[in-house]
Amino acid sequence: MKALVFRGPGKIEWIEKDKPKIQKPTDAIVRITKTTICGTDLHILGGDVPTVTDGRILGHEGVGIVEEVGSGINNFKPGDRVLISCVTSCGRCDYCKKAMYAHCEDGGWILGNLIDGTQAEYVRIPYADTSLYHIPPGTDEEALVMLSDIFPTSLEIGVIHGEVQPGDVVAIVGAGPVGMATLLTAQLYSPAEIIMIDLDDYRLEQSKKFGATRTVNSSGGNAVEQVLELTDGEGVDVAIEAVGFPVTFDICQQILKPGGRLANVGVHGKPVDLHLEQLWLKNVKITTGLVSTSTTPMLLKTVQSGKIQPQRLVTHRFPLDQIMQAYEVFRNAAKEKAMKVILYNE
Amino acid sequence: MKALVFRGPGKIEWIEKDKPKIQKPTDAIVRITKTTICGTDLHILGGDVPTVTDGRILGHEGVGIVEEVGSGINNFKPGDRVLISCVTSCGRCDYCKKAMYAHCEDGGWILGNLIDGTQAEYVRIPYADTSLYHIPPGTDEEALVMLSDIFPTSLEIGVIHGEVQPGDVVAIVGAGPVGMATLLTAQLYSPAEIIMIDLDDYRLEQSKKFGATRTVNSSGGNAVEQVLELTDGEGVDVAIEAVGFPVTFDICQQILKPGGRLANVGVHGKPVDLHLEQLWLKNVKITTGLVSTSTTPMLLKTVQSGKIQPQRLVTHRFPLDQIMQAYEVFRNAAKEKAMKVILYNE
Repeated sequence: MKALVFRGPGKIEWIEKDKPKIQKPTDAIVRITKTTICGTDLHILGGDVPTVTDGRILGHEGVGIVEEVGSGINNFKPGDRVLISCVTSCGRCDYCKKAMYAHCEDGGWILGNLIDGTQAEYVRIPYADTSLYHIPPGTDEEALVMLSDIFPTSLEIGVIHGEVQPGDVVAIVGAGPVGMATLLTAQLYSPAEIIMIDLDDYRLEQSKKFGATRTVNSSGGNAVEQVLELTDGEGVDVAIEAVGFPVTFDICQQILKPGGRLANVGVHGKPVDLHLEQLWLKNVKITTGLVSTSTTPMLLKTVQSGKIQPQRLVTHRFPLDQIMQAYEVFRNAAKEKAMKVILYNE
Repeated sequence: MKALVFRGPGKIEWIEKDKPKIQKPTDAIVRITKTTICGTDLHILGGDVPTVTDGRILGHEGVGIVEEVGSGINNFKPGDRVLISCVTSCGRCDYCKKAMYAHCEDGGWILGNLIDGTQAEYVRIPYADTSLYHIPPGTDEEALVMLSDIFPTSLEIGVIHGEVQPGDVVAIVGAGPVGMATLLTAQLYSPAEIIMIDLDDYRLEQSKKFGATRTVNSSGGNAVEQVLELTDGEGVDVAIEAVGFPVTFDICQQILKPGGRLANVGVHGKPVDLHLEQLWLKNVKITTGLVSTSTTPMLLKTVQSGKIQPQRLVTHRFPLDQIMQAYEVFRNAAKEKAMKVILYNE
């Protein structure tokens, strides 16, 4: 089969690889029909994720058709159309019992990281019974590719950790794909205002189409002042960090009102200054996290009912064998006016 | 009347002052029968709280007897024995409606800060109907002085923010009065282990009498390693910071297991390094806060039932007119083997 292989920092190749085989009774082999590229894949290319080694097939998102199952699989059979979760869960360890699948003792985020991933014609899925989902007939499969990672990440680590409530004023820092998915999922909880903050006017314009009620261009360095002005000097109930830099985290901690929640979604490479000398008496909550995909069933229902339309984030489509070009587009996403790309193989 | 007055950083005096008068219909005048000194009073003396100005009567804790009430007071009458909350709440602003009395728009922590406090023979209590509590007959009044601030602070900002659950492993950094009150109130939620961390062996020994299951002396600089060893390398469910320095906050962030909660109770004077490069994927929650005393009714019931005995923290007693000596003892608390001092005026 063909697969996209990591060759060390900055290097990927689209090459011939052996088709994966069942290794344990709890495995399934899935033929990929649609996959995508994640910001995390760019972090891997940048050399930021040392667990990914030379030769690894990248990718942790996608939908496909079950090709073969191990003898211990009860929920799936060949021919089933499935959504692949970015997180593998054994379903039986202490963390899985608490629905903290991100920290599964024999799983977590391993696809396209510690084992071969979904940017290939076939993928092996461990613990398939607890790591795959049936696709309801008639559902838009491009929408479902967004349910492998980016939508549960935005919902769980941004919106739910941030405890977005009806009537809240929410600020989202970063109008990239994760910020936009946060914007869409936040609306499930009916906040009064969603203020989108980014450096790029085009993305801010797009965010209005997705439901932002206010936008703040932060390129002048005065995002905090602008947000305070928009909120009568009060600040926001929820600030969601969807970038991953000290400067964007800092905006979030400065715009919180008493009782506010700061949900960090961004992947950070270095420490940040936490201003406890100002925050100690402010009753704030700061959360971090890796997605557990425990909300996938909830999201499947919201997609089926049309309450959210994750496919609205898809801006570019390529056949799977043009994935090298797709990486180029995604790497220059702001310039290319790209959000999410779909790679199809049907 | 006599009162303890702040005279600028490092200076206090016990002098004659005018007895307070009713200023608004919602005021009450209370004759103080017992009060105490808080770590925050030492911060004020240290010049760390610029809102406290020359001439201010200090103190925000105590019990007493209602002397006089304004025309708008319905819940109290002269002669009632009352517990004074450290937090004044109007009961009607947006924050009070959410039980966030710390952020009351016409109150919060003002006693012994923006208005004259309780280290005096008499004190004026604004919004008395919503800022005083009736003392149940037969209740130990030394226990109740602990309910003005230190016990609700430890319970709300430490234990409840930290979401202590049955079976949890809890670490408390700092075995001073706030750490000890946290230790006592944490046991209301039946954690499996409480690890007490401090520099002082005597305080650690005391903490065992108060219910700590393990102790760690952090003076060797290896507190993190010791806690990880005590927890099979896993870390703790809840880390409670009860000191207020970057080094103690740092211990807390390094001993959290995935899903862990870090509740900051300490008063901080400078920023800390938050290690988001390690924590971003760990599903942790960090909380800060000033007490709202919304748990005072709950604590009154636990004291009445004997479930907790806050008076166990009282190590020293002085008549109110010896408050200058009491400050000396409290300032050298570790050396004096002091926790809380009671100043009585009956």
